[in-house]
Amino acid sequence: MTPAVPEPEDTRPPPTRRRPGGRTARIRTQVLDAVRAEFSEHGYDGLTMDAVAARAGVHRATVYRRWEDTGGLLADVLDAASDDDWQPPDTGSLEGDLAALNQEIQAALTAQPPFVTALIAASFRSEKAAHAQQRLWEDRYARCEIVVSRAARRGELPPYTDARRLLIAATAPLYHQLVLLRTPPDPRLPDDAARIAALAAAAGAFTEPPSAGDA
Amino acid sequence: MTPAVPEPEDTRPPPTRRRPGGRTARIRTQVLDAVRAEFSEHGYDGLTMDAVAARAGVHRATVYRRWEDTGGLLADVLDAASDDDWQPPDTGSLEGDLAALNQEIQAALTAQPPFVTALIAASFRSEKAAHAQQRLWEDRYARCEIVVSRAARRGELPPYTDARRLLIAATAPLYHQLVLLRTPPDPRLPDDAARIAALAAAAGAFTEPPSAGDA
Repeated sequence: MTPAVPEPEDTRPPPTRRRPGGRTARIRTQVLDAVRAEFSEHGYDGLTMDAVAARAGVHRATVYRRWEDTGGLLADVLDAASDDDWQPPDTGSLEGDLAALNQEIQAALTAQPPFVTALIAASFRSEKAAHAQQRLWEDRYARCEIVVSRAARRGELPPYTDARRLLIAATAPLYHQLVLLRTPPDPRLPDDAARIAALAAAAGAFTEPPSAGDA
Repeated sequence: MTPAVPEPEDTRPPPTRRRPGGRTARIRTQVLDAVRAEFSEHGYDGLTMDAVAARAGVHRATVYRRWEDTGGLLADVLDAASDDDWQPPDTGSLEGDLAALNQEIQAALTAQPPFVTALIAASFRSEKAAHAQQRLWEDRYARCEIVVSRAARRGELPPYTDARRLLIAATAPLYHQLVLLRTPPDPRLPDDAARIAALAAAAGAFTEPPSAGDA
């Protein structure tokens, strides 16, 4: 898992399992599985409510009523990605944790088919998908804050280190290079970005005085 | 100007001026001005070849022949953004230069109307626009390398500091937060990201041994 993107295995056909919650939850599972499959095969422009309903074996009216449009479907795929128990890696050091995290992000952003980057691209097409992508990133970064609190407890960080700013600095180069600049993946980048952030953090670059003066 | 995005003033109606190059260059200027105006007003989905031709006062056939489709038009807007004499700020210190650069990026990415971010979004819709956006970023980052060589000459950096990696690290948090995470602009972010990158650079985080061993 990555801190900011849906689980890559969500892109594969799901194991046939019953989820708790009865019929409503079952329909959601069927529909979201169909959305993932249709979206992976046809992209945003080829995603239609009718094809999703047909593939899911669910009434069109149900799909329209509950999800409204394809943006609503993709938004729910993103929201569903938070329904897991993902936790960031625990390697015993800040730099190690950040590097392992970045390896997961790089793997997700370079996976084939490019499900995660396609969802990010779709977030530029639909307000609903954009807000869901924001919620998912917020969830992932919030879960990752434990990486920083563990490092603080081990004495690796100066007091009042701001976890979120550190995590953004550590992970931003991956997203910038792979999603926006679209440079070929650099196998050293995950470790490099982790090392730079850990080094800057140890030097006090992310400290936030409790009475928050200006920086 | 920013290191990576078209000149904000390109979004305004251009001064009426003759550019060198005769009729072909004049037509390009008229058409690209029309593309910027139409794109700003109607977005990617509302951009049409016919409206651009009409607004530019140029034959439809000419527009289709030379630019093929709306992706081709946007790609040329991005390519044209490199036809300037933009240089990165020269403040006398690495951290100052990076902070000034980041201020320009933040200003471009938060400008209203959001022309630059709309172009980045459009690069997820059209391969041609994506490649042109890549070329523009490549141009901007290449021009910014002088910031690092000046700092090296002033003795601010260890030998063999990799300029590109330093510049990406310094600017990535701006793009990640403003384009992908879509967080509200943080007025401290440009300076923070510059300080962190300068600090990491001084500590040797971007050094690249000339016989490039593994990192």
